[in-house]
Amino acid sequence: MALIVQKYGGTSVGDPERIKRVADRVVASAADGDSVCVVVSAMGDATDDLLELAARVSATPHDRELDMLLTAGERISMALLSMAIIDRGRKAVSFTGAEAGIITDASHGKARIVEVRAQRVAKALEAGTIVIVAGFQGVSTTDDVTTLGRGGSDMTAVAMAAALDADVCEIYTDVEGVYTADPRVVPDARKLDAVSYEEMLELATSGAKVLMSRCVETARNQGVLIHVRSSFSPAPGTWIKPEDERMEQAIITGIAHDTSEAKVTIVGVPDRPGIAARVFRPLADSGINIDMIVQNTSAEGKTDISFTLPKTDLKLARTVLAQVCRDVGATDFQAEDDIARISLVGAGMKTHPGVAADMFDALADAGINIEIISTSPIRISCVVRASEIERAVRVVHDRFRLADPAVYREESAVVPR
Amino acid sequence: MALIVQKYGGTSVGDPERIKRVADRVVASAADGDSVCVVVSAMGDATDDLLELAARVSATPHDRELDMLLTAGERISMALLSMAIIDRGRKAVSFTGAEAGIITDASHGKARIVEVRAQRVAKALEAGTIVIVAGFQGVSTTDDVTTLGRGGSDMTAVAMAAALDADVCEIYTDVEGVYTADPRVVPDARKLDAVSYEEMLELATSGAKVLMSRCVETARNQGVLIHVRSSFSPAPGTWIKPEDERMEQAIITGIAHDTSEAKVTIVGVPDRPGIAARVFRPLADSGINIDMIVQNTSAEGKTDISFTLPKTDLKLARTVLAQVCRDVGATDFQAEDDIARISLVGAGMKTHPGVAADMFDALADAGINIEIISTSPIRISCVVRASEIERAVRVVHDRFRLADPAVYREESAVVPR
Repeated sequence: MALIVQKYGGTSVGDPERIKRVADRVVASAADGDSVCVVVSAMGDATDDLLELAARVSATPHDRELDMLLTAGERISMALLSMAIIDRGRKAVSFTGAEAGIITDASHGKARIVEVRAQRVAKALEAGTIVIVAGFQGVSTTDDVTTLGRGGSDMTAVAMAAALDADVCEIYTDVEGVYTADPRVVPDARKLDAVSYEEMLELATSGAKVLMSRCVETARNQGVLIHVRSSFSPAPGTWIKPEDERMEQAIITGIAHDTSEAKVTIVGVPDRPGIAARVFRPLADSGINIDMIVQNTSAEGKTDISFTLPKTDLKLARTVLAQVCRDVGATDFQAEDDIARISLVGAGMKTHPGVAADMFDALADAGINIEIISTSPIRISCVVRASEIERAVRVVHDRFRLADPAVYREESAVVPR
Repeated sequence: MALIVQKYGGTSVGDPERIKRVADRVVASAADGDSVCVVVSAMGDATDDLLELAARVSATPHDRELDMLLTAGERISMALLSMAIIDRGRKAVSFTGAEAGIITDASHGKARIVEVRAQRVAKALEAGTIVIVAGFQGVSTTDDVTTLGRGGSDMTAVAMAAALDADVCEIYTDVEGVYTADPRVVPDARKLDAVSYEEMLELATSGAKVLMSRCVETARNQGVLIHVRSSFSPAPGTWIKPEDERMEQAIITGIAHDTSEAKVTIVGVPDRPGIAARVFRPLADSGINIDMIVQNTSAEGKTDISFTLPKTDLKLARTVLAQVCRDVGATDFQAEDDIARISLVGAGMKTHPGVAADMFDALADAGINIEIISTSPIRISCVVRASEIERAVRVVHDRFRLADPAVYREESAVVPR
């Protein structure tokens, strides 16, 4: 008898018909005697609708009250799902984040889970009841309702799976799993049977939307097995698990791409010790998340510094950078928002030094110029023109023959379950 | 410095604009240094919308889960109202029923408040914060979210006012107060400055929609002063308070009428001791609420028994009564749903014996036949044909000159505030 945590996103519970289909699926999962704890998001656009209501009442909604408002969303979906399950002859009970013991810090809108007091959930599961837990929400140590921010329901599911010592945390979504590349860009992209936490982390931070990186990180740290799969299909999806000897050892796992960032180059920066700190400290203090920093070799005591940042932070960054340029004596800065990033990820890269060269070759052969390069032990990322990103993904996918499961693997092995 | 509990119904917070207007009003109330605790219902049709959602998911929604679902309604309105108040420069905080300490029994959908642990609310009020409490909801002694049923938000307000020892519980609604009769039926009906708890109880049980009887009862038992007033006008409304020497002593307070009931007559019931119990026990066991029972004088060992009951219970009652007639040896029963009831209420009636005769006269002069009569010390109710009820209300209102504040009063006195 296993203990399964299942998470269904907003699309999966978007209307009453879909909620009933999820109920069928949950009941089927519980039919073998397994204990099932379901984490559920708000229905479809419910959260956006509530945000719009808030905007009509207040230009700057108070953060605690906004969290109180938004948590109505999961309350509705979880109660409806619980009803539907009870209709199917199973015992079910829905719990809010607070009732499920999701204790967070007090950072409204982006709270972090500090503890899960899962006794009430565990007791209900032991009694044979299917438990529905509101995703995305918790209660702070000061007894206020909080929300966990983007990807929050996945965080709830992973944290609950860890607290319950669940056998698996199934993340149901509108795609079949993790692919070698975005199937909308690469039609022959292949669904992966399994990826390691580390690879998934690199994919997530490089633009793969299927899971947020902090969720993967928590799963890795707490040893939670994740199974990403489709709510609309019974097919197995992609397992996210430790990189151990049972897993297929792919040199290259897949490609992620990201069109949400902009690029800034600060020109003519005096090349002195401490100058980078003086450039990036003001940006960090303004809450701007910097990625991919590259500093060119110095010429005549001056250097150029390039970096990427979210497009949404570009306006704020311009104001900060104008001051920074004056302070450090830089010539000027240029900002471009028509760039994109392609990232090639694979645990086997560490021991296969030719991978980077192969990737650069593929892009060069296609006439695609690389503007910035950055690497980790298991990832190579290149910034290219936004207009060329889809072609870049396709040529790199082709070059590494990622559509073919037999290639670029050291050995094949059985994937659990 | 007073402590005021204010309750705003669904119409008052029906859309963002109205919520902002309520926020203006709350902030104005708090401007003099008074502490204000606001109880709020769900926005407009929100509860009905949630019920419809539930119906689309389940034909028989589970009662605990239905309560979980419905309580999302006040969560939304209270968070929005709190945001709007904060926008106006005041501290505000919204609390769910559970957070506000509204402890109920476990009867989902119609829970009764058993205790109010108002410490958290009191502490916030003491700190100068305006507190918004979700109406209609609580948490059971077994830690489950409950709803209080129809008129539940008024119950929350009165219970909260009692727990906080508030100076007044203001019930804001879409009418200006309690009238001598329904102004839609009697154009010159007069708004009453004050009525006693006892009179209000009789009016509420006789069809006046402004407050539920259990709410008035609780206010009386707990000594809570109620002020019913319009959310769309600054005019004073109607005070509901103890019948003491300060109040204007009206012989007649007003008229209520009720078109929601049906009438049943059981014909040819053997006139034996214990027979009434054998008739009414099965109806009570089926959860049917019986009102106005009349038993005619016996003739030849047989009698007729008439009573009224909610139209919505008539279908169930027919089934029960068919069996009852067989069991007690009655001839038959007749059910009529085209009846209505007019009730004349006034504390002064006790000492003015001519009132009943005046009422019967007025109806007789208008050619309106009375089918059932029942009385309490301060009320006379008559069942008439439904088609004649509005005319009946008008002729009785005229006969007692209720539009004229100077008539049918023993003395006049100052109404507080």
